[in-house]
Amino acid sequence: MSKDRVYIFDTTLRDGEQVPGCQLNTEEKVIVAKQLEALGVDVIEAGFPVSSPGDFNSVVEISRNVTEPVVCALTRAKVVDIDCAAQALHLAKRKRIHTGIGSSDIHIQHKLKSTREKVLEQGISAVKYARRFVDDVEFFCEDAGRADLEFLALMVEGVIAAGATVVNIPDTTGYTLPWQFGERIKYLYDNVPNIDKAIISVHCHNDLGMATANSISGLANGARQVEVTINGIGERAGNTSLEEVVMTLKSHPYLNLETNINTKGIYAMSKMVSHMMNMPVQPNKAIVGKNAFSHSSGIHQDGFLKHRENYEIIDPEDVGVPSSLILLTARSGRAALTHRLQVLGYKFDKDEMEVIYMHFLEMADRKKQIEDEDLFELVKIDEVEALLSTKTGKGKDVL
Amino acid sequence: MSKDRVYIFDTTLRDGEQVPGCQLNTEEKVIVAKQLEALGVDVIEAGFPVSSPGDFNSVVEISRNVTEPVVCALTRAKVVDIDCAAQALHLAKRKRIHTGIGSSDIHIQHKLKSTREKVLEQGISAVKYARRFVDDVEFFCEDAGRADLEFLALMVEGVIAAGATVVNIPDTTGYTLPWQFGERIKYLYDNVPNIDKAIISVHCHNDLGMATANSISGLANGARQVEVTINGIGERAGNTSLEEVVMTLKSHPYLNLETNINTKGIYAMSKMVSHMMNMPVQPNKAIVGKNAFSHSSGIHQDGFLKHRENYEIIDPEDVGVPSSLILLTARSGRAALTHRLQVLGYKFDKDEMEVIYMHFLEMADRKKQIEDEDLFELVKIDEVEALLSTKTGKGKDVL
Repeated sequence: MSKDRVYIFDTTLRDGEQVPGCQLNTEEKVIVAKQLEALGVDVIEAGFPVSSPGDFNSVVEISRNVTEPVVCALTRAKVVDIDCAAQALHLAKRKRIHTGIGSSDIHIQHKLKSTREKVLEQGISAVKYARRFVDDVEFFCEDAGRADLEFLALMVEGVIAAGATVVNIPDTTGYTLPWQFGERIKYLYDNVPNIDKAIISVHCHNDLGMATANSISGLANGARQVEVTINGIGERAGNTSLEEVVMTLKSHPYLNLETNINTKGIYAMSKMVSHMMNMPVQPNKAIVGKNAFSHSSGIHQDGFLKHRENYEIIDPEDVGVPSSLILLTARSGRAALTHRLQVLGYKFDKDEMEVIYMHFLEMADRKKQIEDEDLFELVKIDEVEALLSTKTGKGKDVL
Repeated sequence: MSKDRVYIFDTTLRDGEQVPGCQLNTEEKVIVAKQLEALGVDVIEAGFPVSSPGDFNSVVEISRNVTEPVVCALTRAKVVDIDCAAQALHLAKRKRIHTGIGSSDIHIQHKLKSTREKVLEQGISAVKYARRFVDDVEFFCEDAGRADLEFLALMVEGVIAAGATVVNIPDTTGYTLPWQFGERIKYLYDNVPNIDKAIISVHCHNDLGMATANSISGLANGARQVEVTINGIGERAGNTSLEEVVMTLKSHPYLNLETNINTKGIYAMSKMVSHMMNMPVQPNKAIVGKNAFSHSSGIHQDGFLKHRENYEIIDPEDVGVPSSLILLTARSGRAALTHRLQVLGYKFDKDEMEVIYMHFLEMADRKKQIEDEDLFELVKIDEVEALLSTKTGKGKDVL
């Protein structure tokens, strides 16, 4: 039986990046976006163009530098936002505008100070307006996790009729339980007559630790796009983790759902985002934590050595955890260093590698062993650029 | 409608403590155990006495120092382990032996090199033997998440008939999905004739990020004990987080399940465990992460300021996140410092407080504001003891 495709919508650069301390400049965002492309994500949410000139510019540059994934820009259901997003996306090969409005009564009354009727009308108008600029329009029903289900179904039907190609059902406050969230998705499939004209997307938050479980429950009930961030970063307790969703689908093949993710790139992607966005990953984080694949107690070690599957459901190599055989030390050559940097998403020309290799040797003489964290320090963009501009006057290229 | 009680079984000091780098000495374990008692946990798994003299001694000292919670010691289904556990627990006011054996075919064949029949017999014998020493015996069916359901039901029935008061159904490898795990628990309730003679416990691991969701699903299907650690620390990607389970039950009152946890103590408990066990909590960790209650994007801040419930489902005060009104600075007096230390689980006599307060003032002069992390540095047990033994010859007492 052939598997159904699940589209991975990565919002590391939008929902993830808006967290204090996580801000990236445009050049850094392009590096992350190109690594997300290499990882195989289907959609990159690149920013919220109307919110600041920096965000606008980042959407422009990501649009310019990314080929395969759809580049998506967020808007409120407002003309000014949509105009701005359309402009920011003009260079994108494949583009999407993501607009939407609150769908729960609490948001409609207390945030929007509006009514269900007006909100629905505004949402439909926004979709129609966005379709003037792009063929691919996603609509988010904010706080859908707490929305009245009948009204939510009306909203989904209305925006699909208006031309939405994807409808996003977010659990904005991270409140629902997995079976409740799955039932919401099922209700929509059972009650929205035109639902087969669009892809249903799930966007979950982790306030109660349920983001991954809720997303999987949504997918099992018919959703075919999932909105995620690397390492689960994002507002408050964060968003759904890309790595947890992808590896859950891979570990449960009878669900018949597959993604385009090159899972061997997960570890390096996690390291890059954690390092560049200054967001540590705790050792006990699923899939990408430092201890995720380490067996410590005597009983577990014994069982693991007898038969790997006694205590392990994922082969660490499947997510690109580097084998302990490739240690970088002062004895390592340029090839080993170049290879590891490529795995981490960096590509330098010969002159640049020479500068980096000399620094690597200095560092390796001081430390016994060079870890990925050290490599990120080593290739800090500004420093390499400064070195090169003094030495060769050349800039740096990213993979 | 009165709520059903869910028993909180904390294994921070056993499943959590066995992780590399997390090891505590006996005195530190007693401090954590007394703080767990203050938090209101029902059962403290204090160690695995046969594994080392240090673990044995910790179980003895925790038994001596804790009054309310049941103190529990882990064993394999072996006479030598059970003898040792019984001896370690002899001072406990309320005591439990936790024994068990593999229940999945993969564990039975590849780890135990045994058969279903022999394993079942060994489990039943272990329960009977443990009951010679204590009235409260918990039995774990290791790797129950992957066990054949009919055999698992036989095992549960057999150990209950042999005298087990609690039967633990662990998802040892963190493999199951929430609805699957819930269905396992439901199957046992539907197929084990004597199941009402024992409490069913759930013990989930977080390898796919599902530990909390699986535990809640188990509770919703009849389990009444949940095995957790503070901050979700533990083997590999860790165990179920106490804070996530407790706050999920509190946020979903219609589940009609309640715990004895004083939720206002959660934040301080999390800080203590993270600090003492050297296990950082990532900023986007649910409930206890630094960003768990921070609203950063403009849209969210605006919505939050209009009405808290727009973007927040838990009041940070409910989990003891300190109000920004109580800032500790060089202008703070002894009372404010003593209060904050008490919240964090420390109690010192007058002489000790004087030493600490002088150090506090020095630190506060250097730093503008003193955070909880700084206080933990300040009261590092060895240093305070050394200072006191030179000054007064007195020791230190813990709350």
